[in-house]
Amino acid sequence: MRIVVVGGGAAGMGAAGAAKQVAPDAQVTVLTEFEDVAYSPCGIPYAHGREIPSLESLILQEKEFYEQAGIDIRYQTRVTRLDIRRREVTLEGGEVLPYDRLVVATGFDYAPPGIPGSDLTGLYYVKNLRRAMEFDKVLDTARVAVVVYATLLGLEMATALAQRGLEVHFVDPHPWLLADVADPDIMQPVEKSFEELEVKLHLRTTVDAFVGDGKVRAVRTSAGELPADVVVVCTPKRPNNRLASDAGLQIGSTGGIVVDEGMATPAEGAFAAGDCAELPHSVTKIPIQGLSGSHAYAQGKVAGANAAGGDRTYQPVYVPWGLVAAKWMIGGVSFGETLATALGIPYVLGVGEGISRARYYPGAAKTRVKLLAEPRTLKLIGAQMVGGEGIKERADFLGMAVKRGVTLTDLAWMENVYSPAIGALNEPIALAAQNGLTRLKG
Amino acid sequence: MRIVVVGGGAAGMGAAGAAKQVAPDAQVTVLTEFEDVAYSPCGIPYAHGREIPSLESLILQEKEFYEQAGIDIRYQTRVTRLDIRRREVTLEGGEVLPYDRLVVATGFDYAPPGIPGSDLTGLYYVKNLRRAMEFDKVLDTARVAVVVYATLLGLEMATALAQRGLEVHFVDPHPWLLADVADPDIMQPVEKSFEELEVKLHLRTTVDAFVGDGKVRAVRTSAGELPADVVVVCTPKRPNNRLASDAGLQIGSTGGIVVDEGMATPAEGAFAAGDCAELPHSVTKIPIQGLSGSHAYAQGKVAGANAAGGDRTYQPVYVPWGLVAAKWMIGGVSFGETLATALGIPYVLGVGEGISRARYYPGAAKTRVKLLAEPRTLKLIGAQMVGGEGIKERADFLGMAVKRGVTLTDLAWMENVYSPAIGALNEPIALAAQNGLTRLKG
Repeated sequence: MRIVVVGGGAAGMGAAGAAKQVAPDAQVTVLTEFEDVAYSPCGIPYAHGREIPSLESLILQEKEFYEQAGIDIRYQTRVTRLDIRRREVTLEGGEVLPYDRLVVATGFDYAPPGIPGSDLTGLYYVKNLRRAMEFDKVLDTARVAVVVYATLLGLEMATALAQRGLEVHFVDPHPWLLADVADPDIMQPVEKSFEELEVKLHLRTTVDAFVGDGKVRAVRTSAGELPADVVVVCTPKRPNNRLASDAGLQIGSTGGIVVDEGMATPAEGAFAAGDCAELPHSVTKIPIQGLSGSHAYAQGKVAGANAAGGDRTYQPVYVPWGLVAAKWMIGGVSFGETLATALGIPYVLGVGEGISRARYYPGAAKTRVKLLAEPRTLKLIGAQMVGGEGIKERADFLGMAVKRGVTLTDLAWMENVYSPAIGALNEPIALAAQNGLTRLKG
Repeated sequence: MRIVVVGGGAAGMGAAGAAKQVAPDAQVTVLTEFEDVAYSPCGIPYAHGREIPSLESLILQEKEFYEQAGIDIRYQTRVTRLDIRRREVTLEGGEVLPYDRLVVATGFDYAPPGIPGSDLTGLYYVKNLRRAMEFDKVLDTARVAVVVYATLLGLEMATALAQRGLEVHFVDPHPWLLADVADPDIMQPVEKSFEELEVKLHLRTTVDAFVGDGKVRAVRTSAGELPADVVVVCTPKRPNNRLASDAGLQIGSTGGIVVDEGMATPAEGAFAAGDCAELPHSVTKIPIQGLSGSHAYAQGKVAGANAAGGDRTYQPVYVPWGLVAAKWMIGGVSFGETLATALGIPYVLGVGEGISRARYYPGAAKTRVKLLAEPRTLKLIGAQMVGGEGIKERADFLGMAVKRGVTLTDLAWMENVYSPAIGALNEPIALAAQNGLTRLKG
């Protein structure tokens, strides 16, 4: 059995490894246009911010690792065509690789900014390790940075460049940061914290053009021109689906490849996983794409296992998320008030503010939790949080809680660990749920 | 309506507050033999260890707070008798208080060591804020401490005194620390960490006598005599039920007062809550007592609300637990391998070792998770963990998971937040569950 994986990111490498596990004798080939696989692109902002010592530390596996695992990786290899009917992949230069099973894991591209000057050199998109190494050298002599768009990556890059010591301008057209994901009250402490880091927030400000002569030297905005030594463009992620689309694979409403719960496309022998695919959100049933590396890896493993003859299903997507933004941790599950309102999803709300350790214990951090529940059943359907620690673990918990139909009542009277150095008498999640029940009575 | 609460700890104060909430016009009286209420006794070890600045910081509410809340607290007031039939409480000195509803929240006593010298002065039991203030002054001039018994409190006190700079000897008869709660592989890194803190562990060592002439000056053990400037005795907690027992309230197999899910005793008008009561463990159905301050507080609130005419039920007890021991966090839910084996409970095991952040991010800590599941259904029935962060939140999560019948399969493919500074690609809980599924196949 010949399994060809197109793409060497989290989904592609997950697929290759899982395929070898299920069918050790299969011939597994990974095609990637890049010089490396098996590094953590998610860590790039932290290297720029000098929170981790070097970009080299992001490399997870040496190339020999895959050779020994029997996976054939072909680096700097561009695919020009997929032929689903003939089961062939054509490479740049004309070589044709036949396959029995195909896994498309071509990842994402950043959405084009769509404004004048987008073709200038010097615009930095966070994606590739080698480009990051070049950019990191540029940062050594740069003084002023403009970060464009307050996406998750935008928040990470604005934080990193401020910690690197640059003067940072952070530009976004919305009235608050991360407006398409998070609620304004969740982002309010983050905005304050950015100000303390001396990041200049330019909210409600459109980006009208990149300005320069060959190389970008300023960003023109609705609030004036911002000169910049470096410009980081954090447009949303879009599925990189040109090959799939040209091959006739079905493309969904988000631009992602349509797959079933086994990560199989409707086309015989072809699977897809990661940022190039779309899956229905478990609460809203609306297709979504552009999730985390953890999702891509898990989807890749399912796609690879099934390509090799397995029978695995990918679990529904409730999307716990979290990150560090300025000095706060933010996170949540599914959606918050803003998105629920925009989607017309009715909800009852519970809001609680607690602390992460006993009040008197050093490091105790304010933890704000918002819970959204289905009005009739009180089942949890979404959550948002901002705090100082334990946000990732709470998001994972609440993801499972949404999945299992846990209600506000369950959470209001949940048991919690109480030990002064690691947890307070009252768990903030329970406080939020109790508040929700009180609002319902009132 | 006259509600009398006997005891001013977490259960008693929870009961008084909830009673006033449900019935604002009720006359609520709290009787306590101590000088204070509403402080956090759980924080005492951290003050001794100088992790928090002072014992005064443990006081949560000033006395005026309760006056304003309409709760009458009678300090240094010893109760000599409860008369359930006549609904009367007799105080030392002879005063008789009639009541309509009684909440017994008399807490715990440490089990008597039952060895010669137990009546010597200078043996320190961690319980009362005023005694802690006196002991803290003694610590200023002490050089050598012996901590007797590796209970949860013993671990906290050994850690605290080592951090205070004392030479600490930690004595326990079992082959590993916290042997009645935790598995040996969970405690192994903790033992190593105690050694790094230069705490001298005397395991498999019985405590035979306290030695001294009026005041304790050494501890005689099966491995020789240990001279000591201070001796901290951490015997297990026992329900303080003399009053309840004399009054004819039903006492269960653990020595705790028997209550129903509304925290009502079988006797008309009498409720009990906290460490003096017992409740069935939700998995084993075996009665247990001596849980955390968080449990006491929650039980007290149910007892007080129901005493005032409410209709609340206390949720089943799955007992998430956690604490810092030496430099590690440990925790779990329900039980581990050792206790399950001792109780004859069949289980399948999954063990995973992951990390708390991306491998390359500073502060990433090894996180070991063990999951126990019911062999037929694979429903989670217990867990144990050791790690560097996020143990409390994971224990809370797994407590709810046991309660809701979440399986190893659910946990193996759970979604998790992946963001390098706060969470790794692979959640350690998922790794443990995947390991459990692999063991089942093998």
